[in-house]
Amino acid sequence: MQNLNSNNPSIMADVIIQLKPLQHFAEQIFLKIGCPPVEAAKATEVLVSADLRGIDSHGVARLSGYVRLWEAKRVNSKPDISIVHESPSTAVVDGDSGLGLVVAPRAMEIAINKAKLCGTGWVAVKGSNHFGIAASHAMMALEHDMIGMAMTNASPLVAPTFSVERLLGTNPICVAIPADKQPPFIADFATTTAANGKLEILQRKNIEAPVGWIQTKEGKPSTNPDELKSGGALIPLGSDREHGSHKGFCLGAWVDIFSAVLSGANYGPWVPPFVSFLSPPADPVGDGIGHFFGAMRIDAFRPAQEFKNHMDNWINRFRKAKTIDGETNIIIPGDPEREFETERRKSGIPLNEKVAEDLAQLGAKMGVSFPL
Amino acid sequence: MQNLNSNNPSIMADVIIQLKPLQHFAEQIFLKIGCPPVEAAKATEVLVSADLRGIDSHGVARLSGYVRLWEAKRVNSKPDISIVHESPSTAVVDGDSGLGLVVAPRAMEIAINKAKLCGTGWVAVKGSNHFGIAASHAMMALEHDMIGMAMTNASPLVAPTFSVERLLGTNPICVAIPADKQPPFIADFATTTAANGKLEILQRKNIEAPVGWIQTKEGKPSTNPDELKSGGALIPLGSDREHGSHKGFCLGAWVDIFSAVLSGANYGPWVPPFVSFLSPPADPVGDGIGHFFGAMRIDAFRPAQEFKNHMDNWINRFRKAKTIDGETNIIIPGDPEREFETERRKSGIPLNEKVAEDLAQLGAKMGVSFPL
Repeated sequence: MQNLNSNNPSIMADVIIQLKPLQHFAEQIFLKIGCPPVEAAKATEVLVSADLRGIDSHGVARLSGYVRLWEAKRVNSKPDISIVHESPSTAVVDGDSGLGLVVAPRAMEIAINKAKLCGTGWVAVKGSNHFGIAASHAMMALEHDMIGMAMTNASPLVAPTFSVERLLGTNPICVAIPADKQPPFIADFATTTAANGKLEILQRKNIEAPVGWIQTKEGKPSTNPDELKSGGALIPLGSDREHGSHKGFCLGAWVDIFSAVLSGANYGPWVPPFVSFLSPPADPVGDGIGHFFGAMRIDAFRPAQEFKNHMDNWINRFRKAKTIDGETNIIIPGDPEREFETERRKSGIPLNEKVAEDLAQLGAKMGVSFPL
Repeated sequence: MQNLNSNNPSIMADVIIQLKPLQHFAEQIFLKIGCPPVEAAKATEVLVSADLRGIDSHGVARLSGYVRLWEAKRVNSKPDISIVHESPSTAVVDGDSGLGLVVAPRAMEIAINKAKLCGTGWVAVKGSNHFGIAASHAMMALEHDMIGMAMTNASPLVAPTFSVERLLGTNPICVAIPADKQPPFIADFATTTAANGKLEILQRKNIEAPVGWIQTKEGKPSTNPDELKSGGALIPLGSDREHGSHKGFCLGAWVDIFSAVLSGANYGPWVPPFVSFLSPPADPVGDGIGHFFGAMRIDAFRPAQEFKNHMDNWINRFRKAKTIDGETNIIIPGDPEREFETERRKSGIPLNEKVAEDLAQLGAKMGVSFPL
């Protein structure tokens, strides 16, 4: 069960690649599609942060997908990212169809600068693309003694409670909160019962999914991890009405509205699909996909050191919680990803055999040698 | 199953009382404990909004609980509510142990005023008490063409994933978003699989709870709605690790930290219990319970009319979603509560027999005649 629930790829990883050569490879690919050097470096940093943190579905496994979107002219590698509307504590950013990996950190930077001036900063983004892992952006706030938030909408794969239509993405939320001696609290989660990356792991291993993750195209429970290929859908957090899936729907809807209705991006079923072989809807209601970012200066509420001491106390108390027999400890949000990062910075990043093969082919096509 | 999942009290309601006499009764009680007239009226409005919206667990059913907290000198009926820290877009409010029903709308008003000036306003509150339903406060933003948010921590009844200790409250979140011709989107939900009010309904009716709502004091699944009286706990949204209860834990923790670590209130297991017969922890880490409010001016992001037209389009599209066989429609957040309110304003508010009896006794004790 643990294996199903972690994004731990060791169960299927066949090859190990060290951080530096992997970063170098990704950066060369981004340069090849025309990204300016600074943006290629930023896109690489954001992309590979997912591999480092153990969220393998959002790391280099997606690199060839980004390139295909560029080939389909849906990603602009030289975007003119601009503020199109603002107030002292808010902005709307137009990503000009840039890589989300580049647009998102720019938007988060704007949020942080607004927070410096007036306590908090909130930035909605339109005209963007997939932004990697939400945590990568939210965590930018931490070094400024700020709380960071990041959310995004995504390709529609999720059916609202009682529906058979895929109207929402897995729409993740990240909240990153600084502590002092304890590591920061970093909650980063899809608003579905299971993230799509979890399904991909099951698909590769040909393992059934637990009931409550997926439904058939008729809305019946399914354990087939390939069910989405037959018109099925992911289910909002809660799994069924009796267990609160309407709350998961509320969360996913909230993310969709903040990311896209506030910014002027596409929302709900109009969100363009990540895969390049599916065309975006012919009747868009906005520009690209949408994100939403927030930064809150701690000392706009109370002295930062005082807050961080209490965060240490909060985390310490929860760490010491008495566990259910058979469990060694409760998990503080951010712990598993940090442990992955420590290990992988030291020992390298395990790549699934299929992902490594895909990257080697991508390298061959783009004239960049893949270091394996 | 519908009955278990709605907060619909008609299945147990024995007496109907009209809105005006119920409001009058509650207001007289608040005056009797020493609330200034304006605050007694506000507390009544917030309290009874729960009864109107069908959240019976948070309405007049709690009135005698508030009075007992006042008797125990834990509620100050003449609080000096003040801003103790602020920035252009933020404030921390000290509720001076006032009724949350009074402190919360004052704090939300401050958030709205900050948003008028700089786009958004964010207010963390310490030194407060139970604030009724979150929606009552978040919805204050709507008439200003703002998005409203409200959250609060609460008495510890919830065990984090893998734990047997009750370290969090049911910690609800409300997000209220205006539309144009459509009614506003109002998501208001506990971050547990089931709110405590749902359990109370099962207790009164002596019905078993679904697996996934509650665990025993050893952390084993339980269907006994009285399990909390034997040291059991509510479970975070998701029900178990395989179905995402760690995400529900993240949500509850987020609410706790924003409400209390930002403000200087008590957090986690230190939150004082709502019931007066349990003493607050002897080693408090802050003042009272904590809330967090937000107001975002729509036109700090895009023209309000444009946004509201897109919200109409969003809601219309989701309303038209193809349903699972046997379901007539998907539920837009806020729909059920609005239907309750329409019906109850017209036909009166059904009170459970035990609640009516409790109110009659309260009236007799306080010298206020209960109109039934």
